[in-house]
Amino acid sequence: MTTITVLGSGNVAHHLILNILKHDSLSLQQIYARNEHHLTDLVSEELITTDIKKLRPSDIFIIAVSDNAISEISNAIDVPNQFVVHVSGNTPMEAINPKHRLGVLYMLQTFSKDKDVDFSKIPFCLEAREKSDLKILENIALKFSERIYFIDSNQRQAIHLAAVFVNNFSNHMYTLGEEVCKEHAVPFEILRPLILETAQKIEFLNPSKAQTGPAIRRDSQTISRHLEILKDTNKKDIYTLITKSIQRK
Amino acid sequence: MTTITVLGSGNVAHHLILNILKHDSLSLQQIYARNEHHLTDLVSEELITTDIKKLRPSDIFIIAVSDNAISEISNAIDVPNQFVVHVSGNTPMEAINPKHRLGVLYMLQTFSKDKDVDFSKIPFCLEAREKSDLKILENIALKFSERIYFIDSNQRQAIHLAAVFVNNFSNHMYTLGEEVCKEHAVPFEILRPLILETAQKIEFLNPSKAQTGPAIRRDSQTISRHLEILKDTNKKDIYTLITKSIQRK
Repeated sequence: MTTITVLGSGNVAHHLILNILKHDSLSLQQIYARNEHHLTDLVSEELITTDIKKLRPSDIFIIAVSDNAISEISNAIDVPNQFVVHVSGNTPMEAINPKHRLGVLYMLQTFSKDKDVDFSKIPFCLEAREKSDLKILENIALKFSERIYFIDSNQRQAIHLAAVFVNNFSNHMYTLGEEVCKEHAVPFEILRPLILETAQKIEFLNPSKAQTGPAIRRDSQTISRHLEILKDTNKKDIYTLITKSIQRK
Repeated sequence: MTTITVLGSGNVAHHLILNILKHDSLSLQQIYARNEHHLTDLVSEELITTDIKKLRPSDIFIIAVSDNAISEISNAIDVPNQFVVHVSGNTPMEAINPKHRLGVLYMLQTFSKDKDVDFSKIPFCLEAREKSDLKILENIALKFSERIYFIDSNQRQAIHLAAVFVNNFSNHMYTLGEEVCKEHAVPFEILRPLILETAQKIEFLNPSKAQTGPAIRRDSQTISRHLEILKDTNKKDIYTLITKSIQRK
């Protein structure tokens, strides 16, 4: 039985707790949260503490708080010789106070509180300072998912950056599409099947092979017409820059 | 029984023919293709003609060729008083020779020859010069899909432009993510679940509400670090411009 202590009450902590509870061989030791009320719909109150000094030893402490609070929370954990990991894609392992045994458990997925995420399909990116701790981390991650990757802090930062492109920036492309629809009294829902198909193609095709459209065809007539339809400079600039980037190949 | 003649042998023609064959109340009258060999795996040879002068009357002629060939093909159709439509998102209805009855049947989806597309989920954008022809078009489209939209040529151009953002430009964001992975010896497959989840979120959330990441959080520390990791000017410029665009709200 592996005992797990979770620190935090945000989206990631929420989904993590839910999924720990699903596994008989994982035991939720304690949860630390500044505001216990965020979690009382998930677990019984006696599991939650709002006083970080009341934490007991555990096989692993998982810090699931915002990036800039990781260091401070790890300082405040007072139990000696514990294995303490964070879940941030964007923070070096060394942000955790080195009085602990260090590690990272980064789940490469986007979490919303109100939408279930299938943990078995999430890539788990693991890192630990000590080999024996990496083994602990691997054993826990394997309960959730078969997609296990051993990733150092530099690679993890690159993954986080790549995720900004494929997730945050793609979503902004959807937003710009939504704006164009609104400007022409077209319902945005009309684009939803295309958005889904575009992403589903990438399940079996590399994106560089899947590129279509006027930019890659060098269809300058269509490109000029699109630039005429676009009203604001911002969308014109983005259209021009991405078109050039596609044609760069 | 509605008789349909298809002109063309590309991706759209291919999927269109496949789906016409599935419906008993639709009859494939003839197919015109410059190269009959593209289609002999789909239909028997006697249905195919390579001579446009040999076309017989039909309830509808669907021109599914590249945008710049629509006008020429429509000129060459010699049968008088026929209903002739094209399938282009990007071409005004009037590109068809006005000696015919004009219309457009635009299917808002991305087609690859080797991947099945579920026609029942495709939005069909319909336009016709005459009301009675629009009814013919609607009856045909309803055999395939419940998502029927009456869209004029201006709106269709805007939809096509919006589709460039949500499809072509999103795909390019995937490509840039793929490049960042390669540069740091990380397998691109690690991003696939995130790409899918990002698109699936839009099924029930508007993209402007779904935006996450360092730009919208105005996390300038992360943004600077990402710009340091990016090596080439092109990716730096795109990162900066899209970040600004997200923060514009």
